[in-house]
Amino acid sequence: MKTRKKVAANGEPDRLGEIYRMAAEIIYKQGFDATSMNDIAAAVGMTKAGIYHYIPGKKDLLFTLMNYAMDRLDTRVIQPAQGIADAETRLNFIVTSHVQLITGDGKKEGNSLLSILTDELAGLTRANRRKIIERKRVYLNLVRTTLDELKADGKLKALDTTVCAFSIFGTVMWLARWYRPGGQLTGAQIADEIYQIIGSGMFKPAVKK
Amino acid sequence: MKTRKKVAANGEPDRLGEIYRMAAEIIYKQGFDATSMNDIAAAVGMTKAGIYHYIPGKKDLLFTLMNYAMDRLDTRVIQPAQGIADAETRLNFIVTSHVQLITGDGKKEGNSLLSILTDELAGLTRANRRKIIERKRVYLNLVRTTLDELKADGKLKALDTTVCAFSIFGTVMWLARWYRPGGQLTGAQIADEIYQIIGSGMFKPAVKK
Repeated sequence: MKTRKKVAANGEPDRLGEIYRMAAEIIYKQGFDATSMNDIAAAVGMTKAGIYHYIPGKKDLLFTLMNYAMDRLDTRVIQPAQGIADAETRLNFIVTSHVQLITGDGKKEGNSLLSILTDELAGLTRANRRKIIERKRVYLNLVRTTLDELKADGKLKALDTTVCAFSIFGTVMWLARWYRPGGQLTGAQIADEIYQIIGSGMFKPAVKK
Repeated sequence: MKTRKKVAANGEPDRLGEIYRMAAEIIYKQGFDATSMNDIAAAVGMTKAGIYHYIPGKKDLLFTLMNYAMDRLDTRVIQPAQGIADAETRLNFIVTSHVQLITGDGKKEGNSLLSILTDELAGLTRANRRKIIERKRVYLNLVRTTLDELKADGKLKALDTTVCAFSIFGTVMWLARWYRPGGQLTGAQIADEIYQIIGSGMFKPAVKK
């Protein structure tokens, strides 16, 4: 949540949010290393000196963007999920809300930000990489303990919950790569299909609705 | 298949293969942009001049590695799959053989090479990127047409075959990121679990064995 607080404290939430979204979009298209501060400044209509007022440097920007993406995952998926007592309802919520965060109701923001989160770890300093990996681990553990609960309740097939957790992540995170807004299916439909595939693939037939 | 032919023509298949594997390993660990030709030369025990005898430059190397990885996918997964008449058997073969190419029977080679294939597209020239994307599209189409066949046979649930195809790719490709040799499960066991999750998630219950 740090990033969002900082934004509010600056009193310029929209400008900074806009810079993040534009920067994410360019990095997503060109790759982190091929993107210069000049490219980012040009995209947001600022001078290079102006952009440095907001962002100390490229590596910092990447770390900020990843934390920003993790904040959104935290607010929209992880925290609400932690409040759901029933494991099956929780798993459904995690998959469908993460998918819809990526599909972003037709906005481009979702998949570029989330792709950076998964694809550009190598661009971080070692210390910052550890911080992002630690935040991801919290999420992984939430999914895995949810699956462990379902297994203890006899609802899951005889599957390894680590393989299951990573299969969920793989399917959902991959979406950030291939999803393009304006396709035939809405975000909600894609979310529903992915949960059908993943959910019914892991659950014992008796539990299926 | 071009790369392999060239290797054979050079008469030094092992040395070049070794360089590819070492280079893939370093790029996988450090990221493409953080890896210098010096790093690669050091890893294979050659001088920088020596390595340039084999590899004209870093961007060429990346393209070569990706084609090498695609060649292996082609030989081990795509071509044999194209020879399988029954769509369900074909899908099972594709998922399990691709998984086992990544797990690589305990060798590290699999996941580093396959990760590069999926993660470092931004490092290619535009023309080479198109070539790799085209090779990937051939594979995607094989999976999608297999799913279309299964749907036409009434075996699949009412799911979009594009979502299904990308869910398969997501689950399988993600494995290249998280799989570490020497874990509790063998490659064959992981392959079996992933097919259970993906396969039974997409098939109508009546078809399940």
